Amino acid sequence: MSSFGIDDLPVRDELRGKSPYGAPQLDVPVRLNTNENPYALPEPLVERIVERVREAARNLNRYPDRDAVELRTELAKYLTDTGKYAVGLENVWAANGSNEVIQQLLQTFGGPGRTAIGFEPSYSMHGLIARGTGTGWISGPRNEDFTIDLAAAEESIAENRPDVVFITTPNNPTGNAVPPETVIALYEAAQAAKPSMVVVDEAYIEFSHGDSLLPLLEGRPHLVVSRTMSKAFGAAGLRLGYLAAHPAVVDAVQLVRLPYHLSAVTQATALAALEHTETLLKYVEQLKAERDRLVGELRAIGYEVTESDANFVQFGRFADAHEVWQKILDRGVLVRDNGVPGWLRVSAGTPEENDAFLDAVRELKKEQNA
Amino acid sequence: MSSFGIDDLPVRDELRGKSPYGAPQLDVPVRLNTNENPYALPEPLVERIVERVREAARNLNRYPDRDAVELRTELAKYLTDTGKYAVGLENVWAANGSNEVIQQLLQTFGGPGRTAIGFEPSYSMHGLIARGTGTGWISGPRNEDFTIDLAAAEESIAENRPDVVFITTPNNPTGNAVPPETVIALYEAAQAAKPSMVVVDEAYIEFSHGDSLLPLLEGRPHLVVSRTMSKAFGAAGLRLGYLAAHPAVVDAVQLVRLPYHLSAVTQATALAALEHTETLLKYVEQLKAERDRLVGELRAIGYEVTESDANFVQFGRFADAHEVWQKILDRGVLVRDNGVPGWLRVSAGTPEENDAFLDAVRELKKEQNA
Repeated sequence: MSSFGIDDLPVRDELRGKSPYGAPQLDVPVRLNTNENPYALPEPLVERIVERVREAARNLNRYPDRDAVELRTELAKYLTDTGKYAVGLENVWAANGSNEVIQQLLQTFGGPGRTAIGFEPSYSMHGLIARGTGTGWISGPRNEDFTIDLAAAEESIAENRPDVVFITTPNNPTGNAVPPETVIALYEAAQAAKPSMVVVDEAYIEFSHGDSLLPLLEGRPHLVVSRTMSKAFGAAGLRLGYLAAHPAVVDAVQLVRLPYHLSAVTQATALAALEHTETLLKYVEQLKAERDRLVGELRAIGYEVTESDANFVQFGRFADAHEVWQKILDRGVLVRDNGVPGWLRVSAGTPEENDAFLDAVRELKKEQNA
Repeated sequence: MSSFGIDDLPVRDELRGKSPYGAPQLDVPVRLNTNENPYALPEPLVERIVERVREAARNLNRYPDRDAVELRTELAKYLTDTGKYAVGLENVWAANGSNEVIQQLLQTFGGPGRTAIGFEPSYSMHGLIARGTGTGWISGPRNEDFTIDLAAAEESIAENRPDVVFITTPNNPTGNAVPPETVIALYEAAQAAKPSMVVVDEAYIEFSHGDSLLPLLEGRPHLVVSRTMSKAFGAAGLRLGYLAAHPAVVDAVQLVRLPYHLSAVTQATALAALEHTETLLKYVEQLKAERDRLVGELRAIGYEVTESDANFVQFGRFADAHEVWQKILDRGVLVRDNGVPGWLRVSAGTPEENDAFLDAVRELKKEQNA
């Protein structure tokens, strides 16, 4: 039985030969590979989490609030306060990470016999979750500079008539934001073609030079804005994703959500973090400054850098990106090779971490020029 | 736009006209409708949760352990200690509730173009998650007394060749356990037909008069035993489900699991609860005694009762079960109408809660006889 493996099991054909998604988790002094927020939560927030979790733990024998009403209300307030557009409980839905939000959207609006499109390179989980939900995946085009090629995208939508359109802004792993007029044009193309759902993935929006596209929800019931607390709230370990949309969308995803999907401790922890929004957004400002510094210094060193509105920076170009990734790793800094030929991605860390990274790539450049 | 609703959205056809799953959550003095453990976690455990969550919160800006190694190791120890069969980390997988475990299994082994069978009435989420994952659902037969009709079940498996076979033991909502020899026979029928995966859902096994079917894993790589911390561990609010199976199954579900699906606070809380297993299993013994008392008293009052190995009891028969459900509710006790014609289900609560329930149904019986 020792030789019995996955291939001996009746797994679905499309899973055969695949590997689980995930960045290598290596034990390295400086890890700038998964776009984590480098700042630990402030101690007063840790204590507030502890208080709220204690309360939740005393009632843990009971199922959690299935509809997460308090949490969704507070998320709606946060969006209203920061997004220049008023939303309420009825517009907001939350799940275990934006991955689960996207999975629920694809189970509702995608699935077998349906298709979704994304403009690649982009967040690769969109395509992987499509596969996991039986949704056909269409890889849409981008320009050489990683902006969306609007004419080609509109053509692809008209031709393929996808049921779900993903627009990631700021885009991951490239870092650039998508202009609102492009999103509007793609929404209109999608409506003309089907009509289909348009999901704007704003996981990194708090780091953007520009505003959230939340106000585009007005009069666009097929638009969904997806968000996460992993990045701006420094809570990757919490797994709390959410969406804002027309109330009908919130009703619809409840047809596929697993009942009681969001644990009482998750809800308690997220609520505590939302009480400390102001402090956490100050860290975001620091990270934006560090991100801008990374862009400037990398260019000064002589690298090409994609415009970044996120907490990470894409830099290149390399004849062999993976070889450079390894050389940076040899210097104790872990960045990400997302498989975009010629490019690597580095997350904005603390000033010290970023210095270590910049020292490493400066050395490499010198070697290369020597 | 106010009249815009779900039906105006491009939701999948099979979701149209459906309602979200979930028991009515009513504010009633005695709630015995969702098989929750009535005992709050002991205060020392609450404080241990707080300690572990504090530690996790200090690192919350980082992604959680994607593979939940410590948690799976402790779950394996618990299974080994209580299940009369040794399993290790490599045999165990965990997710947000057994619902997510089942969803991952169906994404891996079911899905579009494949089918799953369950013997109904049983845990209705099996069929609902099948629908949510595009897996065809086959409703298998039971005898009049809610035991599995083995000959009919074998015939159905041979004829339908399902990819996944669900066996719930103890069964929900009926309460009765499935004998090991029936599970073995169904496993063999399933292997002869396809071979397919057999999922034994043991959510309530700690309340059983008999043993877990874990030892059946020996030499049966297509068998999966699914478990939860919601019931025996008094942690419905935690959402922690897990499975034990051949390591190849654990490898396989990782192809569909959302990366970092299990939050750091969930892992921390579950680990704390596992440290207090001994205390929690004492509550289980109390609940088993109360369950047996409910069975005895209900029969003494004159009701029919299905044999129960769970923390709930199915009782009847009623010409109109929903009417009786309402009459019990009018007396301040919420039980569950699972839609099994003629029968209702009551969860074993504290002795006081069970007394309140017994008083209510005693009154009803008197009225009926008057």
